[in-house]
Amino acid sequence: MSHNTFGHLFRMTTWGESHGPAIGCVVDGCPPGIPITAEEIQVQLNRRKPGQSRFTTQRREADAVEILSGVFPDASGEQVTTGTPISLLIHNTDQRSKDYGEIKDAFRPGHADITYWSKYGIRDFRGGGRSSARETAMRVAAGAIARKVLGAGVVIRGALIQIGEHKVDRSRWDWETVDTNPFFSPDPGMVPEWTHYLDSVRKNGSSVGAVVEVVAEGVPAGLGAPLYAKLDQDLASAMMSINAVKGVEIGAGMAAAELTGEANADEIRIGNDGKPRFLSNHAGGILGGISTGQPIVCRFAVKPTSSILTPRQTIDTQGHETEIVTKGRHDPCVGIRAVPVGEAMMALVLADHLLRHRAQCG
Amino acid sequence: MSHNTFGHLFRMTTWGESHGPAIGCVVDGCPPGIPITAEEIQVQLNRRKPGQSRFTTQRREADAVEILSGVFPDASGEQVTTGTPISLLIHNTDQRSKDYGEIKDAFRPGHADITYWSKYGIRDFRGGGRSSARETAMRVAAGAIARKVLGAGVVIRGALIQIGEHKVDRSRWDWETVDTNPFFSPDPGMVPEWTHYLDSVRKNGSSVGAVVEVVAEGVPAGLGAPLYAKLDQDLASAMMSINAVKGVEIGAGMAAAELTGEANADEIRIGNDGKPRFLSNHAGGILGGISTGQPIVCRFAVKPTSSILTPRQTIDTQGHETEIVTKGRHDPCVGIRAVPVGEAMMALVLADHLLRHRAQCG
Amino acid sequence: MSHNTFGHLFRMTTWGESHGPAIGCVVDGCPPGIPITAEEIQVQLNRRKPGQSRFTTQRREADAVEILSGVFPDASGEQVTTGTPISLLIHNTDQRSKDYGEIKDAFRPGHADITYWSKYGIRDFRGGGRSSARETAMRVAAGAIARKVLGAGVVIRGALIQIGEHKVDRSRWDWETVDTNPFFSPDPGMVPEWTHYLDSVRKNGSSVGAVVEVVAEGVPAGLGAPLYAKLDQDLASAMMSINAVKGVEIGAGMAAAELTGEANADEIRIGNDGKPRFLSNHAGGILGGISTGQPIVCRFAVKPTSSILTPRQTIDTQGHETEIVTKGRHDPCVGIRAVPVGEAMMALVLADHLLRHRAQCG
Amino acid sequence: MSHNTFGHLFRMTTWGESHGPAIGCVVDGCPPGIPITAEEIQVQLNRRKPGQSRFTTQRREADAVEILSGVFPDASGEQVTTGTPISLLIHNTDQRSKDYGEIKDAFRPGHADITYWSKYGIRDFRGGGRSSARETAMRVAAGAIARKVLGAGVVIRGALIQIGEHKVDRSRWDWETVDTNPFFSPDPGMVPEWTHYLDSVRKNGSSVGAVVEVVAEGVPAGLGAPLYAKLDQDLASAMMSINAVKGVEIGAGMAAAELTGEANADEIRIGNDGKPRFLSNHAGGILGGISTGQPIVCRFAVKPTSSILTPRQTIDTQGHETEIVTKGRHDPCVGIRAVPVGEAMMALVLADHLLRHRAQCG
Repeated sequence: MSHNTFGHLFRMTTWGESHGPAIGCVVDGCPPGIPITAEEIQVQLNRRKPGQSRFTTQRREADAVEILSGVFPDASGEQVTTGTPISLLIHNTDQRSKDYGEIKDAFRPGHADITYWSKYGIRDFRGGGRSSARETAMRVAAGAIARKVLGAGVVIRGALIQIGEHKVDRSRWDWETVDTNPFFSPDPGMVPEWTHYLDSVRKNGSSVGAVVEVVAEGVPAGLGAPLYAKLDQDLASAMMSINAVKGVEIGAGMAAAELTGEANADEIRIGNDGKPRFLSNHAGGILGGISTGQPIVCRFAVKPTSSILTPRQTIDTQGHETEIVTKGRHDPCVGIRAVPVGEAMMALVLADHLLRHRAQCG
Repeated sequence: MSHNTFGHLFRMTTWGESHGPAIGCVVDGCPPGIPITAEEIQVQLNRRKPGQSRFTTQRREADAVEILSGVFPDASGEQVTTGTPISLLIHNTDQRSKDYGEIKDAFRPGHADITYWSKYGIRDFRGGGRSSARETAMRVAAGAIARKVLGAGVVIRGALIQIGEHKVDRSRWDWETVDTNPFFSPDPGMVPEWTHYLDSVRKNGSSVGAVVEVVAEGVPAGLGAPLYAKLDQDLASAMMSINAVKGVEIGAGMAAAELTGEANADEIRIGNDGKPRFLSNHAGGILGGISTGQPIVCRFAVKPTSSILTPRQTIDTQGHETEIVTKGRHDPCVGIRAVPVGEAMMALVLADHLLRHRAQCG
Repeated sequence: MSHNTFGHLFRMTTWGESHGPAIGCVVDGCPPGIPITAEEIQVQLNRRKPGQSRFTTQRREADAVEILSGVFPDASGEQVTTGTPISLLIHNTDQRSKDYGEIKDAFRPGHADITYWSKYGIRDFRGGGRSSARETAMRVAAGAIARKVLGAGVVIRGALIQIGEHKVDRSRWDWETVDTNPFFSPDPGMVPEWTHYLDSVRKNGSSVGAVVEVVAEGVPAGLGAPLYAKLDQDLASAMMSINAVKGVEIGAGMAAAELTGEANADEIRIGNDGKPRFLSNHAGGILGGISTGQPIVCRFAVKPTSSILTPRQTIDTQGHETEIVTKGRHDPCVGIRAVPVGEAMMALVLADHLLRHRAQCG
Repeated sequence: MSHNTFGHLFRMTTWGESHGPAIGCVVDGCPPGIPITAEEIQVQLNRRKPGQSRFTTQRREADAVEILSGVFPDASGEQVTTGTPISLLIHNTDQRSKDYGEIKDAFRPGHADITYWSKYGIRDFRGGGRSSARETAMRVAAGAIARKVLGAGVVIRGALIQIGEHKVDRSRWDWETVDTNPFFSPDPGMVPEWTHYLDSVRKNGSSVGAVVEVVAEGVPAGLGAPLYAKLDQDLASAMMSINAVKGVEIGAGMAAAELTGEANADEIRIGNDGKPRFLSNHAGGILGGISTGQPIVCRFAVKPTSSILTPRQTIDTQGHETEIVTKGRHDPCVGIRAVPVGEAMMALVLADHLLRHRAQCG
């Protein structure tokens, strides 16, 4: 049982606060002989890095990752995992603590400030401390290793499909476009609309929610388990563990409530490759907690950050009523940077279940 | 790591197949000295029991629970927990296996049949075996013990809020009405409409999805943890582990995507009791993974069962294409009986986190 | 984290008290397709069964095991595991609770009576309740399944090598003789001596300690892990978890303290099979926490039971000083029946590590 | 399930290789509000530090620990734990890798070289990589935090009681003397003898084993659990997880085999403080897996290091037979520096069980 570890056989334990000297994680259980370099991890980190457009926080972090253990050159001189724990570390470089002085004593509504205080009686208030989304950098880093464990046959991609009430048009879905716009939008036609909309949100010092969709293709059938290690259960856990997430859906998701049995059942044929071929994917690639071989489809809703310029009523650590305005550097739509984080969590869940499946079923 | 265990400090391990001799569970980690009787557990089991109306499966099960260990009379003669594992067992009495002979070789679309087969190469096909919702009886039984651990101050109630496209009117919400209709509807005005609608679904041999809402009141602030033991994360895991669930929401849920920061932030005042009082509850009682003291609000969508009378295209264990009709006794809306199951999962998560919080924070 | 579960991927959760209606266990994580029958499990249970000679407790228990879940006929009709939890149950039939009435209020020195009381404030005093060695029946049962998982190539055998100060002569070691005498002695020459000695112990209403040695041959190299999942660590945990065990040794054990580096290092050659061949086995088959391919050798000391006829000073639950004599039916040397239990624990550790190794290293 | 984590509620995850850039650990689950500074941790680290006498390795390491997360000034300005993970890091400064080049391809008999290779197919051979006793620095560091969690009322002390065949005279036991000689000897009279003996071992390029005893006083009654979370079981696991340990004893240990029930049963009276007072402590402070309130007494045997100057027969990674001499800087008696490590493991086990007990029993 661990409060800061995710996964069972392929595990990530993260540590660090937003404004401490560094953040880091330990990846444990990784199979040996997997080629991995800091550069490969950095590629994923750079996708999540703040300050890349005016729609994400202006905090400037190099987010340069170091590998401190667990890799070694193999006979050919290539850096590979050794099966021992992989320690990753990122130094915090742009802490500007004074920005946050005002929230030292008062609780930002909608933030973890008040609950950390009520639970622990102490909190590192600088930049949210442990509750900062900065921790998600380590998820992305560990997720980059998980991708290598899964191999090139498993392709995990995420996209932002909704900002506020503005949803992408799925008929225009183009994965190629996702990394070419500041929103991870799979719908190029939506980019101007979101740009316009988020500019107004940003200028008002406001924020807005979003929906992220993550899809994993090439996942072999058989991952997961019937009951309390269901693949969808662990995905729900994974996505809900991301800061600000309030809902998780697999396949048809909440809309499954409106379907009939006829509509919902994904009929099965034999494909040209001799494998089962499903005529639809309401299941989101998972039946009875176990992968079907179809794409795994997962969505999650990210609430708007409560760090906004509009004054809000709150209380302070002394129990006095007060008002608060959060002036720091914040994301008008934290959902944007949640896209690579969602991908990473998908990769972590699948790598863990790949090992779990191999353990029991060979 | 365990495939059939839920929880960490307050743990439930379930076992058994739908048509084996019995199903059961072991509840471990229960504090000593908690009064509990089989009768108290039975009260909750009876709420989930099949065959109580024409809208649930006509399978006839007494679902009579036996306590085989872990309780002993205290000095006053009252049966209390001893701190050792509590073994609960229910004999299966109405197995009628022949009903299921037809699904021995073919996979029901939308069911776990095909994924169990692909994972394990063998499955107990009788009544779905381990994938049967019959397993949820043990969740309800263990949940009854969890309620006792939480104490009378924590009130956990569930309700069905949507069947197909038919949603309750929240302005008519009345908890008192929930146990007085066959749907666990909190809206008495919706009962005739659902009755009419489900009768038609049932007569067509079809099925339909639903949404369940579970609310826990009286939960103390401070339960949960910042990252990978978030209370909302564990609730998402708990609810998604229930058969047929495809989506989970906390508080505002998926709709949080459409909110602005101003709307979403639950402002805070000091209540008459000197404790924080929130002016709204978009957070669903959880901030940063930790309970705020407000009601915990969780919803989940249940897909329609794929056991329907309409023939569906499928394949068999030999890889041949075929058709299947599921003639067994099934629930037209499995979401109904998911209400007490959702309550039980809420109780299990909260009891576990109560112990976890006590461990770290005294 | 679990108080009543042993193992990680191949896991056993036991439940039940000595004088409750039944004892049982749930074996989880078992690979599918392993042939197993109640009869095979019973063979091992019978080796541990009480009342088989005058040197073990005269309690009469059939110890007839039932399999309640997790097995199903495969295509050929053979009962095999399905990958779902295997529930095993043994009804208690000879409870004679009145024998134990005298220990209801007073604590037997050297027993768990006082610590259960201090921890939980309540205990099932009948026959020791949960602290009874009766629980070890479930270890033996689960161990029988673990043996099947390991396969016929792994041979696990135990023997009693010391009773009181009387040690076997290792030069006369003969595995064939172990199951042909009431002591599991590997030294036929020691049988008369032990018979004579234990008869006197028994007649005096006394008891005596013993040492058990368990050897596993055919264990592949590579099981275990470098640090906190060391194979020797998990064996130490396993053996120390057996009732009354006070010391555990791997290979040279405590005597390693007296060795020099030259004497202790097991030199390595290449065997005729092309595999490493060690010229000695001070390591007991484990280096750096990982199996070498040599026999795994583990020993443990079992203290004498404190259930003796000599009056001992003690206190009662009210805090008064008193005396106690334990008149129940007890083993003069509980170490004897610990032999099959030690074998079972070895099997459980190895099966767990086999799956763990497969998970990480394929 | 984790290969590099020790503990359940109070947990330590270690990482790093002997000759990588750094070693470190993450301490998770620590209660909030515990005052802790790097200086306090350093005090314990310095007791284990190499190069402090001619009887330990001459490797020169400052072993300066940094706290990277999890502490924050409280209202009074004192550094206290926040309840979030505590990341500790020590830079490796004296790696001198060329010393170890000769063992790149050949396996040192008695070392983990061959088993790492057989398990993972790759190993960081520099200084033993992950198998180096250097890892134990992090145990000592984490143990220093565990001591703070236990509080000043729990006193944990270790001593070396045997080197080779030379045992201390227990009648001369004096805890005060332990930290005043290079052997952690509790018997000042033994110091000259050990000095003389180890000088000869060292000059011969040989090594020798030892026995360490660790005693914890002030441990409250009630820690531990009846079966698979027994306090003695977890101590056995903890001590056997230390490099080179081959045997673990609790209380009477292996000698319990020679005792009668009369001799072994620790009789109980009521002490002047109204608490149970035991007339002896063969149990080593643990009955039925649960602490009695008496001193917890644990011993473990450390084998001699196989890094010796005498040539030994071995094989290389290519499967060829060869000879090896280990010329590096090594401890003639690795048991010496195991004393603070054993203390640390005792502290980690007790802190974990303190939280576990509080979770279940309040």
